[in-house]
Amino acid sequence: MKISDFGGEAAIIELIRDRYGAEPGGELALGIGDDAALIGFGERLLIVTTDLLVENTHFRMDLSEPYLVGWKSAAVNISDIAAMGGEPTYSFVSIGLPDVEVETVESIYQGLHDANAAFGSVIAGGDTVGSSAGIVINVTQLGVVERDLVTRRDGARVGDAILVTNTLGDSLAGLELLLKLGLADARRASAFCVERHLKPEPRVREARAAVRTGNVHSMMDLSDGLSSDLTRLCAASKVGARVCASDLPLSPDIHVASARLDADPVALAASGGEDYELLITCETGDAPGLVEAIRSTGSPAGVIGEIVEGTGVVLLSPDGGEGPMPESWQHF
Amino acid sequence: MKISDFGGEAAIIELIRDRYGAEPGGELALGIGDDAALIGFGERLLIVTTDLLVENTHFRMDLSEPYLVGWKSAAVNISDIAAMGGEPTYSFVSIGLPDVEVETVESIYQGLHDANAAFGSVIAGGDTVGSSAGIVINVTQLGVVERDLVTRRDGARVGDAILVTNTLGDSLAGLELLLKLGLADARRASAFCVERHLKPEPRVREARAAVRTGNVHSMMDLSDGLSSDLTRLCAASKVGARVCASDLPLSPDIHVASARLDADPVALAASGGEDYELLITCETGDAPGLVEAIRSTGSPAGVIGEIVEGTGVVLLSPDGGEGPMPESWQHF
Repeated sequence: MKISDFGGEAAIIELIRDRYGAEPGGELALGIGDDAALIGFGERLLIVTTDLLVENTHFRMDLSEPYLVGWKSAAVNISDIAAMGGEPTYSFVSIGLPDVEVETVESIYQGLHDANAAFGSVIAGGDTVGSSAGIVINVTQLGVVERDLVTRRDGARVGDAILVTNTLGDSLAGLELLLKLGLADARRASAFCVERHLKPEPRVREARAAVRTGNVHSMMDLSDGLSSDLTRLCAASKVGARVCASDLPLSPDIHVASARLDADPVALAASGGEDYELLITCETGDAPGLVEAIRSTGSPAGVIGEIVEGTGVVLLSPDGGEGPMPESWQHF
Repeated sequence: MKISDFGGEAAIIELIRDRYGAEPGGELALGIGDDAALIGFGERLLIVTTDLLVENTHFRMDLSEPYLVGWKSAAVNISDIAAMGGEPTYSFVSIGLPDVEVETVESIYQGLHDANAAFGSVIAGGDTVGSSAGIVINVTQLGVVERDLVTRRDGARVGDAILVTNTLGDSLAGLELLLKLGLADARRASAFCVERHLKPEPRVREARAAVRTGNVHSMMDLSDGLSSDLTRLCAASKVGARVCASDLPLSPDIHVASARLDADPVALAASGGEDYELLITCETGDAPGLVEAIRSTGSPAGVIGEIVEGTGVVLLSPDGGEGPMPESWQHF
């Protein structure tokens, strides 16, 4: 049976985790299934996360720039460190290269370097190999977090407020513009949305400010989109969620992009993908303090819904109707 | 300028290390340039290594089996942990998959799992993504080593004996047979050499026995072949080396394979590639004890030459002549 008939990426990941993944135990505090693994590291926990990006599957050189491909490869991993409440420390970069221009390699590494430097991490090792299959980049990012500040996706409780940082959907709008118009014209249509897609900012400072309040119940980063990721957080926490469409934070630019794409900005925000914003739950009474703590780092945050009993995620429309969340973008 | 005109893989790695790699300092005891990076981890050192394997560049599915592709992907990383004198602990596997059979994925992971289990490590995390560019596997392997047992490639001293474990050149002979005859006929010609290429055994126990003697000056694993790797060890240690052709350890099977390939077994052993044996230097007087310690784990070891002043590696032929080492296999 082919992967596509078996249930796609999600089914394969579940099979791998159940059959071949290590159970937590000993020094391994958390294995496959969260944003990252956690390993005992003296008084603190070592965080390990890894992401593989394949040319023409995860990025296209004609719809980005080498520097931005490097930046994003590092940033998406650093975002996973932030999701656990930690700080990034060391990055290990594997790169498979066809016989491209040396300047292309330099620009990719400059982007990797700069994203690390912006968040207090360095490139400490890696592997450089030839590739007959386009550019391939794998980043393994290490980080550390205090044992009492670590946050996982399985701690949401019924009654919790659901918060997100900044705005949602910009990245998906940027991607759609890129696919429709190409790089130059997409940037003319919405430089902001294209930048949000090609140069995500990991929310390390926001996450640290949040966990230091001591009030975060669960947290993850929005990599696959609110619909998919909130569904995962709910499944891990054995709860359900209700999201208010009218509370989804929208940028001014997504309205411009949506008009150009003939799309619904709320649907873009609810499905999303590659937002790399934080998804947080906490007691309702603690939400204002958490919003204030995050805001002190320069990013707005707001409540978009609540954790409820049951399973699955429901979207409440402004007219009072209830419906399923729009589906997030799928890899396979 | 293209990579191929710039000096290939070696030149690109040097550029990346010099321009973008972190200098050792603080918790980072060793960055880019050895078999693995070393990070302070309480009383011990954390070892981190990563290897990227791209289908049709590093492996061919028609010249291997999914299980063996998985085994080898894990084994080559575990070999880097052994090279530092350490023990493997946790493995992080990124895999990019076209829409292949689920059984193929299961077999790859079974191989990854078994190679880990054979050496006391577990799969603790990873990333599973689609790929339009064939199968791509990146393994990041963690390990630990006591601070007083860690071995690097820059510790060789003039007068040191040079030792290797087991036999050299079998893997290259196996590869040449595979390329010439295909999988089934290559196995009929020399099951041993083909196995040595497709299912390398990391020398973890041998390396641990060696470093516990306290007499190892420098160590690395033979991944690119004796010629390349000894040249690297010498460059890192700022010394030269003389290797005696008649002391290169040859298996009975390499003679059979060489006859079939119309090749010189000594040339295969000296150039080599993917042997994954240990290359060790120590004081001449300590060599017998080191050989004995390694032999207690089940692997033979022997002296193949000595470290001398100067630079570069010279091969002494049985007739007393001196010449350069044959070149190792190149990625780009």
